[in-house]
Amino acid sequence: MHTIYSADHKLQDGKFELIDGQLLPPFECPKRAENVLDRINEVGLGAVSGPGDFGLDPVRRIHDVDFVDFLRTAHDEWRAAHGDTDALPLNWPCRGFRQVIPESIDGRLSYYSFDAGTPITAGTWTAITASANVALTGAKMLKDSGDRAVFSLCRPPGHHAAKNLYAGYCFFNNVAVAAQWFRDNGAAKVAILDVDYHHGNGTQMIMYDRSDVLFVSLHAHPTQEYPFFLGYEDETGDGEGAGFNLNFPMRWGTAWDVYSQSLDKGIARIAEYAPDILLVSLGVDTFKKDPISHFKLESEDFTEIGRRIEALGLPTHFVMEGGYAIDEIGVNTVNMLAGFEET
Amino acid sequence: MHTIYSADHKLQDGKFELIDGQLLPPFECPKRAENVLDRINEVGLGAVSGPGDFGLDPVRRIHDVDFVDFLRTAHDEWRAAHGDTDALPLNWPCRGFRQVIPESIDGRLSYYSFDAGTPITAGTWTAITASANVALTGAKMLKDSGDRAVFSLCRPPGHHAAKNLYAGYCFFNNVAVAAQWFRDNGAAKVAILDVDYHHGNGTQMIMYDRSDVLFVSLHAHPTQEYPFFLGYEDETGDGEGAGFNLNFPMRWGTAWDVYSQSLDKGIARIAEYAPDILLVSLGVDTFKKDPISHFKLESEDFTEIGRRIEALGLPTHFVMEGGYAIDEIGVNTVNMLAGFEET
Repeated sequence: MHTIYSADHKLQDGKFELIDGQLLPPFECPKRAENVLDRINEVGLGAVSGPGDFGLDPVRRIHDVDFVDFLRTAHDEWRAAHGDTDALPLNWPCRGFRQVIPESIDGRLSYYSFDAGTPITAGTWTAITASANVALTGAKMLKDSGDRAVFSLCRPPGHHAAKNLYAGYCFFNNVAVAAQWFRDNGAAKVAILDVDYHHGNGTQMIMYDRSDVLFVSLHAHPTQEYPFFLGYEDETGDGEGAGFNLNFPMRWGTAWDVYSQSLDKGIARIAEYAPDILLVSLGVDTFKKDPISHFKLESEDFTEIGRRIEALGLPTHFVMEGGYAIDEIGVNTVNMLAGFEET
Repeated sequence: MHTIYSADHKLQDGKFELIDGQLLPPFECPKRAENVLDRINEVGLGAVSGPGDFGLDPVRRIHDVDFVDFLRTAHDEWRAAHGDTDALPLNWPCRGFRQVIPESIDGRLSYYSFDAGTPITAGTWTAITASANVALTGAKMLKDSGDRAVFSLCRPPGHHAAKNLYAGYCFFNNVAVAAQWFRDNGAAKVAILDVDYHHGNGTQMIMYDRSDVLFVSLHAHPTQEYPFFLGYEDETGDGEGAGFNLNFPMRWGTAWDVYSQSLDKGIARIAEYAPDILLVSLGVDTFKKDPISHFKLESEDFTEIGRRIEALGLPTHFVMEGGYAIDEIGVNTVNMLAGFEET
């Protein structure tokens, strides 16, 4: 399987995220992608190449223009106001507040985010545009090559980002940008399977009223886990999209026995939908040793996930999302890809 | 002027707040109230006494039952999940998210808050119930004594807290609780004048559809300043409350020349309303040396604010809100009270 990778991801290297009441070095760190890349090379999964430059138009097909503009200049404005530190927001326009865009940089950080775990650094803009290009290059390669699968080793991840919201380590929603690219380049129907531990709220929000993109997500139950306020079973899509959003929330402690049943149901729905392309939001934070998660998957379970995804027989674009057990992120990620390849 | 004060405020002594991208010792700290108390005694403003116990019913007249229950047990639940640290939330249910109440303590912190600057500590519950009692005791004393004014030295402050939201150092909205107590005890109409640097979004949200409580707020413009998403001039009340909410947002750098014009307009509206009682949300973070604010009031300007409030001729209940220039908070606060007294 071909992997797309850009070293520019290393420029997203925040000092802190707010978690468990503390500012800790971000769990979402450069070493994650490096370890996945090392494992790809170690097992000889396939060639690795860099991204092309697709410009911002494909990103703007998903994200609002003002949001993209904000991200481009946010750290410069922050630096002018606060000095050369990472930018974190101050507060959030929750229920009862107006959705107005403030002038000040602190106000705009607050407007465009929904957590304090996602620092904007001097290198964020370069890293997130590279990450989107990694996704887009993978999409184009899958289409042009006729290969069964391509892996976009995106970092920062994307699935929490909505049209005009960043958070959860995510800025641009790479998988949504790639899905839209497939739609704009000949695919009539696209499915996204999100196996990250956390609900892909951003992808759901973006695709919620669309029937041309089926979204299926397996994740920790939002009543227990981040992002808390989306990811319930009864969120099934709206308007044109009614019936095209499928959530499988599972309780803390979920292991393969329960997980695999949800996986099979999700895969069955994708088969029924019969998309031209399948995208996979590939997170491995369902792993039993993940430091911020509460599922119990074993390393070999990721191989089996790859096998079952392959059985759909679809052109498949894997797009990297989360996974914070640094030492095993390479093994677990590549297990899924190799599971797909082996059959 | 009589002051109500409880030493229980000292139990709200958080380790950190998230501000300017860092976790810093909270600007809202015990020394604030201590310095105000010292200055009261130094100038002999009047007697100081402790609060009575009004129970939770008057608090529940303003805040939702589930919100009050949450605050009571939040730190115990946090400690069970995370150990004996201060509780800070993780993310927030912003636009596009559902307003569902999660099971997990992290999820409920996220649901009930709108910033990460307001730690819940082991002592928070005791401190906030004491602070509400300080406000209620002041209200009852004003009514029973026939005095022209009473000062409730509340800490934590309250004006950012809404029916089921805490943030901005505020948990229970002391001034709203006191205003409701006046309404429930014979006052037909009550006005609240908020002179804190920050918009009193909580008080506005609570009273927005009511004509029996006039809310007038002078504050930094929300397009520049926290809380960013309320406090605009065009927020004038809703339904029954239409015309009974009056905001004077002012730009960074505002000094007495501009401030005093807004003050006079606000006071004129209160005079026209002719309430039975005036409550003042007394913040002194409009001071030129305030470390987190951008107005330019001088210490003697607070004396003049007190004089102009007094000129309304109304029974007046001063309720302490913000002010973070520790060294001058006593002088500035007592200047306002003494300005009221001198005439």
